[in-house]
Amino acid sequence: MFAKDAGVTPGLVEAAVLPRTTEEVATCVRIARKHGLPIVPRGAGTGLAGGAVPTEPGLLVVLTRLNEIHDVDEVARTAWVGPGLINLDLSKRLIERGLHFAPDPSSQSASTIGGNFGTNAGGPHCLADGTTVAHILAAEFVTPDGDIVMMGGEAPDTPGLDLRSIVVGSEGTLGIATKILVRLMQNPPDVATLLLGFPSIEDAATTVSQIIASGLIPAALEMMDQPMVQAVENFVHAGYPTDAVAVLLAEITGTPETVLDGTNAIEQVARRNNANTVRVATDPVERALLWRGRKSAFGAVAQKAPDYYLHDTVVPRTELVGVLTKIYEIADEYGLDMLNVFHAGDGNLHPLVAFDSKESGKLETVMTAAKEMVRVSVEAGGSLSGEHGIGLEKRDLMGLVFSEEDLDAQARIRDAFDPDGVMNPGKVLPTGSRCFDAAGVRIPT
Amino acid sequence: MFAKDAGVTPGLVEAAVLPRTTEEVATCVRIARKHGLPIVPRGAGTGLAGGAVPTEPGLLVVLTRLNEIHDVDEVARTAWVGPGLINLDLSKRLIERGLHFAPDPSSQSASTIGGNFGTNAGGPHCLADGTTVAHILAAEFVTPDGDIVMMGGEAPDTPGLDLRSIVVGSEGTLGIATKILVRLMQNPPDVATLLLGFPSIEDAATTVSQIIASGLIPAALEMMDQPMVQAVENFVHAGYPTDAVAVLLAEITGTPETVLDGTNAIEQVARRNNANTVRVATDPVERALLWRGRKSAFGAVAQKAPDYYLHDTVVPRTELVGVLTKIYEIADEYGLDMLNVFHAGDGNLHPLVAFDSKESGKLETVMTAAKEMVRVSVEAGGSLSGEHGIGLEKRDLMGLVFSEEDLDAQARIRDAFDPDGVMNPGKVLPTGSRCFDAAGVRIPT
Repeated sequence: MFAKDAGVTPGLVEAAVLPRTTEEVATCVRIARKHGLPIVPRGAGTGLAGGAVPTEPGLLVVLTRLNEIHDVDEVARTAWVGPGLINLDLSKRLIERGLHFAPDPSSQSASTIGGNFGTNAGGPHCLADGTTVAHILAAEFVTPDGDIVMMGGEAPDTPGLDLRSIVVGSEGTLGIATKILVRLMQNPPDVATLLLGFPSIEDAATTVSQIIASGLIPAALEMMDQPMVQAVENFVHAGYPTDAVAVLLAEITGTPETVLDGTNAIEQVARRNNANTVRVATDPVERALLWRGRKSAFGAVAQKAPDYYLHDTVVPRTELVGVLTKIYEIADEYGLDMLNVFHAGDGNLHPLVAFDSKESGKLETVMTAAKEMVRVSVEAGGSLSGEHGIGLEKRDLMGLVFSEEDLDAQARIRDAFDPDGVMNPGKVLPTGSRCFDAAGVRIPT
Repeated sequence: MFAKDAGVTPGLVEAAVLPRTTEEVATCVRIARKHGLPIVPRGAGTGLAGGAVPTEPGLLVVLTRLNEIHDVDEVARTAWVGPGLINLDLSKRLIERGLHFAPDPSSQSASTIGGNFGTNAGGPHCLADGTTVAHILAAEFVTPDGDIVMMGGEAPDTPGLDLRSIVVGSEGTLGIATKILVRLMQNPPDVATLLLGFPSIEDAATTVSQIIASGLIPAALEMMDQPMVQAVENFVHAGYPTDAVAVLLAEITGTPETVLDGTNAIEQVARRNNANTVRVATDPVERALLWRGRKSAFGAVAQKAPDYYLHDTVVPRTELVGVLTKIYEIADEYGLDMLNVFHAGDGNLHPLVAFDSKESGKLETVMTAAKEMVRVSVEAGGSLSGEHGIGLEKRDLMGLVFSEEDLDAQARIRDAFDPDGVMNPGKVLPTGSRCFDAAGVRIPT
């Protein structure tokens, strides 16, 4: 059960432990070190890039039992939680206090706060609220030596180097967070969700650009293409317009006045760009149904094929249409069944290829096409990954974004935490990233 | 002219260079290394913690000539700028495009973007917008080896470790930023500034807490005590009520409706907490005058004494009154002339002691009192520095906030960039911070 995450690559599990406390995690790390074994930390295994998949014999440290909410401070709006706590469980437990944890990856009903921490996870509402790193204030952290240190702190500001921001998103390569101080946000007094249907991708993308250019930052701004809308409608009957070529889901939060202003502004922009469906949901049940559609998108794809491979590139908002056009061409060329659902507001694309890995040679075709899709995104001034991490599956594409010197700088930081390379080896950085010595002289390989 | 910054400690200048390009900076670094000299980077020298003061013979690299605006992208809302560009000059140059650079330290008419970068500077508007790190997307960076690398990037998201966030705020100890990609923000369509006078510090502090607790995040929320208000009024005649024991300056930005709602909400909270002055300025001239008062506060102190020492602690908002009371007691006990002006919204205190350094033993008394003020802030769950950095003057107080293991983790990162300890030596980390070897064994000292 621990050999795979939600990505496509299976790994090798030799031994797994499920510790219950920070001290037990530290002990596991020390024992692994004593026996010369590498260590792979893992949460719920919902990752999409193979980050928690062990690639060599070692110790898998599964953190799901560290799932307590230790302490909630309503005045400071913070909580200390275990890394194994499921994301949505935290917000559910806080509902009566009027607070929530903002990062909301689509996996939030299964993924853990520790996994969100490791990948610096995003989600629809990260457009306005920022990704996970903006919501992590501190972490108790077990180093690769088995020491327990504090990164960041409860104090409102921490002087010195911001180590907290470097361990968030480090995908288990620097150590293991065992207790996490999260920032909580106030539930907004009012919310409206808009469903907008368009006759073309261009019209939807122009609407996105014009909304942002007007100075409005919606709480979320999501796009789906027609194949995805149809799959979702078949699956959860969210009431999406299946005749639309592109659908936008926008959300506005704030005081009732702000919500009304924002809703009107978005409606106007959408109609100016030929929207043929405009629905505003303020009722909680109707809003929940619209969101259920979006959040079930990956599940809906299972109707089409048993496996899927999901990209996670980011492009400047102005390049959305150009890059999408090229991505459709690539899918066509390789004969792939592709659906699109993505965070349009921040240009984070998720082309999703549905396929059957039992079909001979299919996975290789999917991966070849994937590389081309990443390349067109990067060439348009974009990046390799928005929120899912690099893990194993995007590791060898890092050279598309970083120079040798850049990768070397990252490898040096990793060395500073983990000189023996025992924490989640083989992930994130391609082999040979550490290519210069301290004097800037190339290390012979 | 380069021996001191705006702090109290003079240093030692042996050689200063004023390069004009990234390549010249890299050459300077390589030459210094060749001759075994330490390197101290410097901007406008407005720092308040001695961060740019050389403490041993070496090369001072003054970056004020790298002051170009290379490129403004209005669609992406970014600009590449030189580190020597003066903060306010950037926003002035962008006024017709309706954009600005959000971090606004009080020194902004003199301090450079590179200096803001080095200290992760704050400012009144960082309550809503975040400190400098939230506004830096990338940097071309000269390493201590004289290599040129890119931290972060133009792409909307950068995978791997977030090195950008670790060099921002590193006070010149990891290398030198020579070209900086800043995020620009849209000028708000409407703004109102409120001046509120209160009969007690408690009333003003309760108003701050209740505003934030209501879910409103004002663009700025500043407090001044009576001695500071009187000094400021004497100096710039901003129209502050000199009979008030505490004055709040609050700013609300957004659409006209949002501004009206926010202004009304703040007024109500203030009146409920006994405000005896409530003035709302929407006219640009009147608003500018109110802000001139706040931004001239440090200058106004020169009427009292030739020198000042400024603290920069941060405390939880709920502890504001308790900590301030203790700070007043400490000032009384040591017979010091203290004025207060601070970022109340984020609990960032700036007790300012006016004194004459020619008076024998006075500086020592000021520093002893400073340490006690920091201690009461830290004991209340606060921190050592909010925005001015650690530099030389707060270095030996780092132990109040960090454990040995924590400091060692920071020292390891520094070693990863600069194993020979040549970049701005003697700053930020106290001597002996690197106290464990890679296996976690204590290094004998």
